[in-house]
Parts: sequence; C-alpha cells; structure tokens
Amino acid sequence: MEPIYYLLSVSYTISMIILIILFIIFSIFIAIKTDIKHFVHLYFVRLIILIMEEHHIFVEQKVDESKRTEHEKYLRLAIKLAEENVQRGLGGPFGAVICKDGQIVAQGANEVVPKNDPTAHAEMVTIRLACQELKTHNLEGCVIYSSCEPCPMCLSAVYWAHIDHVYFSHSKHDAKDIGFDDHFIYEELARELHERRVGITQLLKDESRAFAMWTESDNKAHY
Amino acid sequence: MEPIYYLLSVSYTISMIILIILFIIFSIFIAIKTDIKHFVHLYFVRLIILIMEEHHIFVEQKVDESKRTEHEKYLRLAIKLAEENVQRGLGGPFGAVICKDGQIVAQGANEVVPKNDPTAHAEMVTIRLACQELKTHNLEGCVIYSSCEPCPMCLSAVYWAHIDHVYFSHSKHDAKDIGFDDHFIYEELARELHERRVGITQLLKDESRAFAMWTESDNKAHY
Repeated sequence: MEPIYYLLSVSYTISMIILIILFIIFSIFIAIKTDIKHFVHLYFVRLIILIMEEHHIFVEQKVDESKRTEHEKYLRLAIKLAEENVQRGLGGPFGAVICKDGQIVAQGANEVVPKNDPTAHAEMVTIRLACQELKTHNLEGCVIYSSCEPCPMCLSAVYWAHIDHVYFSHSKHDAKDIGFDDHFIYEELARELHERRVGITQLLKDESRAFAMWTESDNKAHY
Repeated sequence: MEPIYYLLSVSYTISMIILIILFIIFSIFIAIKTDIKHFVHLYFVRLIILIMEEHHIFVEQKVDESKRTEHEKYLRLAIKLAEENVQRGLGGPFGAVICKDGQIVAQGANEVVPKNDPTAHAEMVTIRLACQELKTHNLEGCVIYSSCEPCPMCLSAVYWAHIDHVYFSHSKHDAKDIGFDDHFIYEELARELHERRVGITQLLKDESRAFAMWTESDNKAHY
C-alpha cells in the first residue's frame, strides 16, 4: 500500500470518529432536551415543520368542521371585545370568551393598564371570571376563544385550568408586529436558571417545612 | 492503486459526507431552537451544565453576599406564609413576598382553592397586590421572594411585571415530589401548536381589525 493512501485512510478514520462522537453528543443533547416521541421522528419531520412554522408557512388546522360555524361565532365575539377595547382606549387589543356546552360562561378583555395588573391579559381575566361563574378552579369541558394566540403565561394558565381547546385569530407573529412580543419568554423558559435575563437564585433550600407539612397534613386543599 | 483501497476511500468519503450533512442539519436545528449566544458555547459548556442540572447536581448561586441576610429574611417570611397556608388548610404550600428598596410591598399565599382561581399562585397573588399597592403595572426595581421556584405561568408574569430578581427556596423538583409537577408545561410551551396536549387552532386569521385599529389609534393605553 502506498503511504499516501495509508495516510488518507487514517485521516478519514480519525475524521469519521470525531464526527460520530459529535453526532452522538448532539443526539444525546436533543434526546435530553426533547422527549422520546420527538426524538424518534426528529430526523424526518421535525426540522421541516420547524422551518415552515418559523417562516409562517403553515399552521395546522384541527377543526371539527361540523362545529366550525359555532367556533367562528364565539371567536368573532372575542375579536369584537378586542376591537371595543381599542375603541374605548382601555387595555391592549385583546379579547377572550369561554364557553361550556355551547354556552358562553365568561368574556373579558385586556385590563393591564386600567386595572394596574400586568397579569390581566384577556385570557387570564376570562379564566378567572369563568371560574367565579362556575364556582370551581377546574374548567374541564370548557373552550377558550381568544382574539390572539395566548402568551406563555396565558397558555400555562390554560393548562392549570384544564381547559379543553383554544381557538385564536391573530398569531403571536401578528402580535409581535404591533409591539407585543412574547417570544423572549419562550426563550427564557427554555433556559437554565443562571442563563436567564431575570436574576433567579435559590437560597435556604433546606429550611422550608412547607412541603413536608403539606405531605403530612390531613387537611389538604387538593387541586 | 489497489481496488480495495479505492473502495475504502470512496466509502469513507461517502460516509463522511453523510455525517457532515447530518451534523449541519443538527447545527441548524439547534441554532433555530436556541439563540446565537447559546449556539456559540453549546459545544463546550451547555451539555455539561444540562446534565448536571437534570441530575440536580448544582444550582448556581448568584447572591450579592453583602445582602444575603436581607434576602434570607424576606425569603423566610415567604416560607412562613407557605407553612401557615398549610396549617390553616387553605391553598397549596406556597407563599411569596415582594420588596422594593428593602421594604415589603406585598405578601401573599396560594389561593387556588379558597378563591376558585387556578391562576392564584402565590407569586401571581403577590404581583397583583404589589401593583395595587404601588399603583402601577410595572414592578421594575422590585424583588420577589417565593417559597418555591416559580412555575412557567408565574415566571412569565415576573417578566411581564419587569421584576428584577427572583429568590426561591424549594426547587421545582421538590414541588414535583409532593405532586405539583409543572414540567409538562415547559415541554408543552416548547412544542409546535399541533403537537400540544391541549387542542389549539387558528381560525379567522384575517378577520380581526383589532391590531390594525391599535396601530392606527391615537388613544393607546401603552404598556
């Protein structure tokens, strides 16, 4: 064997080993950051979907067509609430409606400025009203219609409230275009504590008895 | 050149090209999913930190040591509020305190069950109280002390309220151990719309005039 080919083979082998190691590290990284389901179809589907979504090429529609008219009716009401909020110079251009069994349970609009409450997004206001109306903290069986795609705070509240479905009109990209950008919160939530924009520090980690007391208590308010 | 070495070289080259393509795809994927800063130090730091955090090996402490006693004092109050909430059989074992310029502005505890409000986590309750107290929706210059690491809803609210720093005692892992698991919300927020557990559908995307009206309005309630 000529030396040049020998050298070539060795350098290829080393390069390949390095690349394989990098590939394995990346795979582990993604396996940790996502879950197994993601991991399995990552190579085939996820990248394409991601790029399409990033460029607003598609948003998948999952609509029960027989009920589309009903959903559109309530979403139009949420939009009307958003428009009225602007007309009246109240909070931001956001409205929401919550329905159960085809009946309106609550409706609301953004009240951040008039109520001095940074948590008073339309969805939050409406979730709280619906819970008062139904006298429960569990909105299972309810649907929320929002004039805009919920921000991370509102979407988290949707999960805590066990709402079944979210219908929205304007996307978060539209919201960004008029100055309501929630993208940075998605990024922040995905980061480790010490990498976040807001300072966040754990102290006295072994001092609280609250969790032990909760575990031992017979008087728990379950939720 | 012997055919076997020729074959070897060709197969190595093809393998390398495939691996390089995969490597580039993964790099693009991660560059999209994270931001540039992450991307730059990903190869050196991030994987190790991630594994350490996943296994609870470390939580970085960023504490101004000269103020540690003060921070611990207010955090102890938040813990006391959490413990009292359990003792009284009210909401979950969570308490929070908000301070500005070393003075307590507001304090609160979890009120999900007594108030029928799934959004009434200790931090949310306290943020809302502090805003009422200070007559603003902007808590810049404020620090929040929470007996437990904020969930995605509360952390988002921290960002919307522009709070400067979060100090907490129990970690989200501790919370999970006693039945308060918010991990699934982090996962859900990182997913595309159609991959989420809750149904989420865009309808009437061009029908709302709310955003255009907001842009044109001279009467905007800025926040």
